Amino acid sequence: MSAEEKRGLNKVDKLAVIAGGGDLPRKLIKSCREDNIELFIIAFEGNTDIETVEGTDHIWTDLGAAKKNINALKKRDIKHLVFCGSIKRPSFKGMKPDWKAARFLTKVGLKALGDDGLLTAVRKELEKEGFVFHGVHEFMNDVLTPKGVLTDTAPKESYLEDIKTGFRISQEIGRLDIGQSVVVQDGIILGVEAIEGTDALIGRAGGLAREGAKNKPVLVKTCKPQQDKAMDLPTIGVKTVQKAAEQGFAGIAVHAGMSLMVHKDAVIREANQSELFIIGLDDPNDDES
Amino acid sequence: MSAEEKRGLNKVDKLAVIAGGGDLPRKLIKSCREDNIELFIIAFEGNTDIETVEGTDHIWTDLGAAKKNINALKKRDIKHLVFCGSIKRPSFKGMKPDWKAARFLTKVGLKALGDDGLLTAVRKELEKEGFVFHGVHEFMNDVLTPKGVLTDTAPKESYLEDIKTGFRISQEIGRLDIGQSVVVQDGIILGVEAIEGTDALIGRAGGLAREGAKNKPVLVKTCKPQQDKAMDLPTIGVKTVQKAAEQGFAGIAVHAGMSLMVHKDAVIREANQSELFIIGLDDPNDDES
Repeated sequence: MSAEEKRGLNKVDKLAVIAGGGDLPRKLIKSCREDNIELFIIAFEGNTDIETVEGTDHIWTDLGAAKKNINALKKRDIKHLVFCGSIKRPSFKGMKPDWKAARFLTKVGLKALGDDGLLTAVRKELEKEGFVFHGVHEFMNDVLTPKGVLTDTAPKESYLEDIKTGFRISQEIGRLDIGQSVVVQDGIILGVEAIEGTDALIGRAGGLAREGAKNKPVLVKTCKPQQDKAMDLPTIGVKTVQKAAEQGFAGIAVHAGMSLMVHKDAVIREANQSELFIIGLDDPNDDES
Repeated sequence: MSAEEKRGLNKVDKLAVIAGGGDLPRKLIKSCREDNIELFIIAFEGNTDIETVEGTDHIWTDLGAAKKNINALKKRDIKHLVFCGSIKRPSFKGMKPDWKAARFLTKVGLKALGDDGLLTAVRKELEKEGFVFHGVHEFMNDVLTPKGVLTDTAPKESYLEDIKTGFRISQEIGRLDIGQSVVVQDGIILGVEAIEGTDALIGRAGGLAREGAKNKPVLVKTCKPQQDKAMDLPTIGVKTVQKAAEQGFAGIAVHAGMSLMVHKDAVIREANQSELFIIGLDDPNDDES
């Protein structure tokens, strides 16, 4: 997709980047600059890296400062928003909600505090005020995981069953808004990710792997069925691959077109060095009827 | 239930105890002796405690020795079986299947190697040969978790929502044959048990608990919907309570009538000392229509 096509497609001249941690926000900002999109960054203390905001109009704010953030957007006449980067889940103690945020939290209640539930509720609330949400992939080339085997090593035939099982269970776990990743070995679910994160899951599952089994463990990470591409897509990075290699995994299967691989070249290089496979795939259970 | 009633109910004169680790098999054996049931123990090297077999007719065997085990039962004219105690999941390397076990494993294939899938397959295979399966609770008084609050501390009103959420998710996880336990705090699933066991789950989830939250974490452990009472019922022991107390949990919710609490008095004493609640309940989501 050319820059013109992207501009044409999005018709976005001004964009607010609601930026979390990591370098994804910086890559997005660079890409938007090349497309002459006017930018404004909402940065969160304790989450966003300082270098992310350098040289761009921004405010530093708090997750609970709903009114301040919305006013800053309205003052700049910005309608288009993109969420990007990692946000640490706030604890009630750490969060200082203003009256607007407090009213919102009271309304959505405890039930909405699953990852997906909270993000969806925030989105709906903001859409009511006229804001439009976008996914980072709309502003960056080549950031979604492609379909197919991405590494020199392909998964052996015997891994296909585990990848299928993992995909199915990962989707079920996602549907329940528990998490996105599972580890499978020889049909056994070694571990399921809840809020501990993918790296912690890999570390734990490696220690539970069965010796003398036919297959080594495989990590499968997919996008929740009810999830919206504009929000929080699953991500595989260099660290994920390193951790999986350390723990003796055979490879990683990820959701094609529904997950981010931001440093794709580095990720694939790392996997090739460790002879891990990475495969991007649509739901392999869809083929069966 | 009196011994006579139990005898009458079960009409079991001879019983084979397929005994794993822990002291549940010894308690079962003691209870059967009091009821004058003739016993035979199949003990597994590396799993069953040596003291379990003392003074009772037994063989030491291997999980893969299907033919030997079946012959031992037939020679003694035993039809009634009870599975009891913990069995470490065998690795392919560690298992030495005889031709009968190998044929069985080839037939059920990898897909059946989830906990529940494997046990069900073994059961079906043995039922075809005329064996009858029983649950330990048929031979022991007062071993199933009763309904209601079992401790001095009752769960506060604000915990009911988390207990409900935990019950629902635990049942879903069970239906997928992943595991039996989840930890919930303020509507968030802190962790899901796969093969790591309940103690490891409690340890990890304690570290992920959110500070300043309204509720402390709660462990919810339920019986898989497709599970059969004669097989592998979820168990809560003194160690579970100790671990939960260490990690700052508020309490434990377990499946009434569908889980075992073998040392009930000791379990409740431990919970009272730490001011934890233990509640036995049917699916609280059943009340809603």
